[in-house]
Amino acid sequence: MTTIPDELDTPCIMVDRELLQRNVDRMAEAVRAAGLELRPHAKTHKVPEIAARQLAAGAVGLTVATIGEAEVFAEHGAEDLFLAYPLWVGPRQARRLRRLTERARVSVGVDSAEAAVTMGTHLADAAGELTVLVEVDSGHHRSGVHPAQAVDVARAAAGAGLHVAGVFTFPGHSYAPGMPAEAAAQEQGALAEASELLSTAGFAVTRRSGGSTPTALLTEGTVATEVRPGVYVFGDAEQLELDRCAPEDIALTVAATVVSRHEGGAGIPRRIVLDAGSKVLGSDRPAWATGYGRLLDHLDARITALSEHHATVVWPEDQPLPALGERLRVVPNHVCLAMNLVDDVAVVGGGVLVDRWTVAARGRNS
Amino acid sequence: MTTIPDELDTPCIMVDRELLQRNVDRMAEAVRAAGLELRPHAKTHKVPEIAARQLAAGAVGLTVATIGEAEVFAEHGAEDLFLAYPLWVGPRQARRLRRLTERARVSVGVDSAEAAVTMGTHLADAAGELTVLVEVDSGHHRSGVHPAQAVDVARAAAGAGLHVAGVFTFPGHSYAPGMPAEAAAQEQGALAEASELLSTAGFAVTRRSGGSTPTALLTEGTVATEVRPGVYVFGDAEQLELDRCAPEDIALTVAATVVSRHEGGAGIPRRIVLDAGSKVLGSDRPAWATGYGRLLDHLDARITALSEHHATVVWPEDQPLPALGERLRVVPNHVCLAMNLVDDVAVVGGGVLVDRWTVAARGRNS
Repeated sequence: MTTIPDELDTPCIMVDRELLQRNVDRMAEAVRAAGLELRPHAKTHKVPEIAARQLAAGAVGLTVATIGEAEVFAEHGAEDLFLAYPLWVGPRQARRLRRLTERARVSVGVDSAEAAVTMGTHLADAAGELTVLVEVDSGHHRSGVHPAQAVDVARAAAGAGLHVAGVFTFPGHSYAPGMPAEAAAQEQGALAEASELLSTAGFAVTRRSGGSTPTALLTEGTVATEVRPGVYVFGDAEQLELDRCAPEDIALTVAATVVSRHEGGAGIPRRIVLDAGSKVLGSDRPAWATGYGRLLDHLDARITALSEHHATVVWPEDQPLPALGERLRVVPNHVCLAMNLVDDVAVVGGGVLVDRWTVAARGRNS
Repeated sequence: MTTIPDELDTPCIMVDRELLQRNVDRMAEAVRAAGLELRPHAKTHKVPEIAARQLAAGAVGLTVATIGEAEVFAEHGAEDLFLAYPLWVGPRQARRLRRLTERARVSVGVDSAEAAVTMGTHLADAAGELTVLVEVDSGHHRSGVHPAQAVDVARAAAGAGLHVAGVFTFPGHSYAPGMPAEAAAQEQGALAEASELLSTAGFAVTRRSGGSTPTALLTEGTVATEVRPGVYVFGDAEQLELDRCAPEDIALTVAATVVSRHEGGAGIPRRIVLDAGSKVLGSDRPAWATGYGRLLDHLDARITALSEHHATVVWPEDQPLPALGERLRVVPNHVCLAMNLVDDVAVVGGGVLVDRWTVAARGRNS
């Protein structure tokens, strides 16, 4: 059991440096072995020091969600940035994108002819600097066009002066039990269909981008040229419950203190309350999850409710309740939300606080 | 329909200055009319300018959730702060509390003899500066002791040198349809029982503190001496769906842009995608809610899914889909989480940007 360093006040996020590095290396090796390129999603961590480790391990670039995130990583030296998002670009966004293209290779998503034309118009002479990938819907039904419509979007983009390099998709429906294999197959099917249509229409398709953490390692031998997993650097309770990582792979936990303790009885649950609530763990809770996160050293306990500053943890009947003041490690359900709630994280190595990293892109929503 | 000022990039939080002031004034008047004192919970907004309006309208002090929040509001001149939380106080927390008591009247929660003794021990000579309220459980089954145990906790606190002033409770189970009246009754019952027992045991009970936004106005003629509503300053989609506020009372919205648009068909939903996701709206979603927030100007639309940077909005069949690039106002489900995700908010008056307020206590989790 890893110790929580005494000098940390709770709640706070702890990143285990060795486990983080192992996760970074493992994914890099697996993606390389599959003959793919790795473009990890930096929205998960938002930390330049972690991006640097991913790039050192062989990532070809970073994926980000917003122009603001791209700006932060470009300031920290990233040279290849993919905004895997259907951007709507007005004059201000165009100015920012133009500045970004002066310091990095920038690619962005587009999923409609209108968005492509608007983007090209506002970028004007600089439109050629921007590479676009057409987003296709592979079954998640969020953004993205049907693969059959990809050519229409690509033609509009090319007509607006943008450089079309290929297609991308996000198999968000892979984040559910039993879904990764099916979602990965749909993902590859959508990329293949759209890519073939683009090639037939005369586009040189050099990038077919897919892959979430659940599907990234299921893409071997398929049509994708690159994958964009994010959560793999830390793991989280959702990945744990989806069997995509093991407890010993979890590199990020929230240190929390037992502030309230109740033996319960007469219909009232036997429980402890931790000082880590939704304002540090995030409140994502898929219907299939066992609760609002897991206790890494007490996997049988259940976080049954989350307030802003309280986690209510129902304790296994056959185990003694932890003492008041005891400090426990909580694995958030969705680690991307937890990282976005703190200004910095404690970096731990061998049970000792070895560094603090600033979450430089926290809150960069636009 | 309120305009979204052109100069705002989306997603961003907009606060309507006039509606905010009306909400502040209405609650102040209602609480005064009920013969109660108002100690609003500042964790909702975390903004000194809003706290100042609450105090100017007659609030006797502020409620906060953490020592960090208390420090921020004390720096901004708050003179009476209640940490309505069962604090576990070690040496570092004791030092911070001691500094706080030098600039403000400070009261804190306690729900066990152990926590009271630990707090008193670490505060040492300064223990007498701290007022404690015993937290009782009025049916939410989170923190708080059964009212019958309040005397044990109070005796331990007094024995540790702390000043016991009364009791408090949080009727968290009031945040569900049909529950406010029942929860308010349980709240008053728990406060009455604990208070009587404390009086009988010789404690001078001067504060009985209760009240969430759903129950604050149901406490007329009851035993509470003060209430601690928070959400009322803004309103949110949960309060809207609980009928505790009307659409025209909503003072906070997230401005968002339509980035993707799909007519759907063949089992695929007819929808738009907005650029406001869980990283600006928060992802609280009670089982009884209609979705992940509401669109203030399109109340029939349903936010069926929320990713970090996407809201998927299924559109009413009889209404045309909004255009790409159109900007819409989203009401978050739980406004306290939304405020904690941004560094500042746009203050709007008469459809014009009139100010920016810093969310000074954002992220102060400890």
